[in-house]
Amino acid sequence: MKTDTRQKILETGAEFIHLKGFHHTGLQEILKAAGVPKGSFYNYFGSKEDFGLQVIDHFVGYYALMSGPILEDPALSPLEKIRKLLDWFMDFFKSKDYAYGCPIGNLAQEMGDLSPAFREKLRSALDLLVDTYSGMLAQAQNEGEISQDLDVRAAARFLVSSWHGALMHMKAMKGSEPLENHKRFIFEYILKP
Amino acid sequence: MKTDTRQKILETGAEFIHLKGFHHTGLQEILKAAGVPKGSFYNYFGSKEDFGLQVIDHFVGYYALMSGPILEDPALSPLEKIRKLLDWFMDFFKSKDYAYGCPIGNLAQEMGDLSPAFREKLRSALDLLVDTYSGMLAQAQNEGEISQDLDVRAAARFLVSSWHGALMHMKAMKGSEPLENHKRFIFEYILKP
Repeated sequence: MKTDTRQKILETGAEFIHLKGFHHTGLQEILKAAGVPKGSFYNYFGSKEDFGLQVIDHFVGYYALMSGPILEDPALSPLEKIRKLLDWFMDFFKSKDYAYGCPIGNLAQEMGDLSPAFREKLRSALDLLVDTYSGMLAQAQNEGEISQDLDVRAAARFLVSSWHGALMHMKAMKGSEPLENHKRFIFEYILKP
Repeated sequence: MKTDTRQKILETGAEFIHLKGFHHTGLQEILKAAGVPKGSFYNYFGSKEDFGLQVIDHFVGYYALMSGPILEDPALSPLEKIRKLLDWFMDFFKSKDYAYGCPIGNLAQEMGDLSPAFREKLRSALDLLVDTYSGMLAQAQNEGEISQDLDVRAAARFLVSSWHGALMHMKAMKGSEPLENHKRFIFEYILKP
């Protein structure tokens, strides 16, 4: 019961913060939408900042849960996994009318300069994403799908940061073109034998 | 005098919004920092949103002013101009301890989903950036600096969106690595003969 309430607050807050940002989301609207009495928030979270940091963990967990079946599919080659991940996200954002973007990237942009605690947490979350792509690229190199000359760690950072920028543009353009453009340049120019 | 006060409010507001975002910046702190009486804001701006839209124009004007001398330098080739612009920004962000990011990209991320008026304004501002790069890449193609096969319009979009993502990562990493990495991949893999 205690865990359920905490989880409900986290999930509801994650939804608001993903769309509206951290500062623009009020605790009251989260608790109202979650149907949780106002006083009980501080049973689970020390402060709004502490809550925000736990929401980042929630997003990281969600990403792992979502990408797991693709990343662990033995029928897919490393590059096929990257293509499938991008396609999954493109379908997701289409279903959301090209809103939201990546919550980790959004919060890096919003909070990176304003809170050292957020910054550290977001840096770890971004590094984890880069690690995941780096691992896939190393495997792609072993399997001959991409050039041996590619610096896989640097390429993984470029892939992730470039994707975050494409999502920024998607939100202003309200369309898939920046995402499709990202995919096209990544595969035509960088991820090739 | 009237114009000076309006300009002072715009410049002060731009500084706050660039660092803290639109929603997290209060009109009161802007007016206090600008030394302008609270009541006079509405002589110049219809609402906070109207003010925000004019701040975007201010940022676009600042970008044109800053980049003009590089873009119009007849001694530089098109690719040298792009290199020099990136170097200018890398020096700028170093001097700011890797804070701020691009105000147009930041606001696209923060406001793209929340205000149609912001979205339209930001879409135009992003298109203008893409146009500028597209023009330079077309010239680079004419001068044989880059491949004739490159789709310059799409490449310009990729350059700009990818740079915005690198700035997002910069803010979380508090360092130049994402920016240097962007420059490296753009020039090693895309902008070449």
